Amino acid sequence: MEKKYLFSPGPTMLPPEVLLKMAEPIMHHREPEFEKIFAEIREGLKYLFQTKNEVLIFTSSGTGAMEGAVSNILSKGDKALVIRGGKFGERWGEICKAYGIEFIPIDVDWGKAVDPKQIQKALESNPAIRAVYTQASETSTGAKHPIREIVEIVKKHEETVIVVDAITGIGVFNIPMDEWGIDVLISGSQKALMLPPGLAFAALSDKAWKFVERSNLSKYYFDFKKELKSAQKNQNSFTPAISLFVGLRESLHLIRKEGLEAVFRRHEKLADATRAAVKALGLRLYAPDSPSNAVTAIKVPEGIQGGKLKSLFFEKFGITVAGGQDQAKGKIIRIAHLGYYERLDMVMVISALEMLLKEMGYAFELGTGVKAAEEILME
Amino acid sequence: MEKKYLFSPGPTMLPPEVLLKMAEPIMHHREPEFEKIFAEIREGLKYLFQTKNEVLIFTSSGTGAMEGAVSNILSKGDKALVIRGGKFGERWGEICKAYGIEFIPIDVDWGKAVDPKQIQKALESNPAIRAVYTQASETSTGAKHPIREIVEIVKKHEETVIVVDAITGIGVFNIPMDEWGIDVLISGSQKALMLPPGLAFAALSDKAWKFVERSNLSKYYFDFKKELKSAQKNQNSFTPAISLFVGLRESLHLIRKEGLEAVFRRHEKLADATRAAVKALGLRLYAPDSPSNAVTAIKVPEGIQGGKLKSLFFEKFGITVAGGQDQAKGKIIRIAHLGYYERLDMVMVISALEMLLKEMGYAFELGTGVKAAEEILME
Repeated sequence: MEKKYLFSPGPTMLPPEVLLKMAEPIMHHREPEFEKIFAEIREGLKYLFQTKNEVLIFTSSGTGAMEGAVSNILSKGDKALVIRGGKFGERWGEICKAYGIEFIPIDVDWGKAVDPKQIQKALESNPAIRAVYTQASETSTGAKHPIREIVEIVKKHEETVIVVDAITGIGVFNIPMDEWGIDVLISGSQKALMLPPGLAFAALSDKAWKFVERSNLSKYYFDFKKELKSAQKNQNSFTPAISLFVGLRESLHLIRKEGLEAVFRRHEKLADATRAAVKALGLRLYAPDSPSNAVTAIKVPEGIQGGKLKSLFFEKFGITVAGGQDQAKGKIIRIAHLGYYERLDMVMVISALEMLLKEMGYAFELGTGVKAAEEILME
Repeated sequence: MEKKYLFSPGPTMLPPEVLLKMAEPIMHHREPEFEKIFAEIREGLKYLFQTKNEVLIFTSSGTGAMEGAVSNILSKGDKALVIRGGKFGERWGEICKAYGIEFIPIDVDWGKAVDPKQIQKALESNPAIRAVYTQASETSTGAKHPIREIVEIVKKHEETVIVVDAITGIGVFNIPMDEWGIDVLISGSQKALMLPPGLAFAALSDKAWKFVERSNLSKYYFDFKKELKSAQKNQNSFTPAISLFVGLRESLHLIRKEGLEAVFRRHEKLADATRAAVKALGLRLYAPDSPSNAVTAIKVPEGIQGGKLKSLFFEKFGITVAGGQDQAKGKIIRIAHLGYYERLDMVMVISALEMLLKEMGYAFELGTGVKAAEEILME
């Protein structure tokens, strides 16, 4: 019998009730019925983002909202500070480059969190920096950046905003937008939101909206101002991915029913259990100092090929885990636990890891990882 | 009992087999299983677009591909010629404006097709025009532009390309890209492709790809060159709307099974029948001279409120038709027949139109419209 499991950090496994909702006959996006759904979604997203401001919705990959956070926030001649601690940090730099924005990179060793002091220093010595771009959780390395501390530093600069890609952060751990004072907060549908890919989200602080007012870079599809006006009428500016909206209402209901705090606790427990299992198996974390609760990156032990391990996960158990990208290629595997995951899901994937490692000749006692996980999952 | 029907020009009704395919557990987009689907889709899209070149796929509304056809084709200082015969023609102008591109508009009365001679004249008197932007079928008015004739004119200008938004044209009537020599051809998922909204398509001629090479406008998410490289590896540059891709494979199968010529004939018959019914009822077409087979725009007769008629369609019969936009607001209703529509679908909507008009006091003999439609549908 063949069963398939996703443990990749997006797309993630989806609740059948969300899948089935999306399979209902499609409705028209200019009918009151859809506008009612849109209104519910707006409320649900504000709850999830912990903001009183509007959360904009775009039909695109998360990258679309990232691009919008450059093209709507900055103006010609503005400078940016880009935290590059992995593949997605690099993306911020690529987008700035595409828009002719000069950026100062802070290159962080993969698997590490950025040191906020470096940001403070960069801002002090480059008063022309108008925006700091970072990830909350760097999906490619499994490291979490200290957003709260970064925000505190950026806040002191009236003419600078902090833009946080929380595509694998929102709905995983606490990032209270308004309370902390984040200026731009971004997410996507295929992560903790338990939906297929295809929707991107962006929320802006009042300070960020002022930047939008003066921004003179080219934009059309990802025009934040236009989208804000549409959202206030429970509409999208352009034909939205209607079926994903219908699914989104459903998944926001699930999140609300569980409650944000419980959602964060669940992710913490799953991540803790995964990390405990990894250590019990004598393996090492790729981001040991500041691991994200979204995804656990595990160093592949010596003598074992990372690519082979990833392939065997799929061949032998139907499980998709992620490998490493670029400089981490072949060196790590990444096991995600964000979204529609529960305790026993982690037991499955850890057990599969054990059986595969044993088969590949790695020396340890079978069951050790699962035992360590269970001790935490039982708490 | 409540049944719902979409007769709006996007979203359109969807085949249940496509909806159910999309409800299957989601797969990962970097697995061979998905790449196989991607490869099939590439072939299917080439068949549909009638081109040997790659058809790029973006997770976005159709507007995303329209924006890309400006930001990837033009360069700073280039001029454009924009055919504005409705809401979507206007959109080309808005996008040019967003990118600082000076454009010369050819304003066509709503409901009319552009006169190709005007394009010829404009190109001759403005040699700086690098691209002509038009619709194949202007969804807001139901008019069809003479693409073949326009292409013949633009072809004579080596330094100018013709860009055709065929969002409601592709899969409806014949627009053979390579045979005619169209440079950029655009479509979207929620029309004749029988899918929910969320995917946009763009195919480029070799001539257009040369424009892309030298283009220096800002782009990132809608970067055609980057997307071409990804497509050749059966991938998207960014996480695609996986479930829509799965549905797309299915709907491309359906189109291939029916055969493009049969698809065009079916749309022609449905459109002919609708137009015959409209005339038999003593109503007038909004685009009588060059009607598109995608959607029939009907002038609301005097004494009847267009908005009211549209509302009653939904209230009394669960049918969504489109009203008029902007200057056509309240003056027309639009009945779509593109995508998953068969003969008896048109009988339903015409019958509903009859019953509503009778109720609203319009004088005619019940059954007249259906009779005229049947005479054509029987052929």
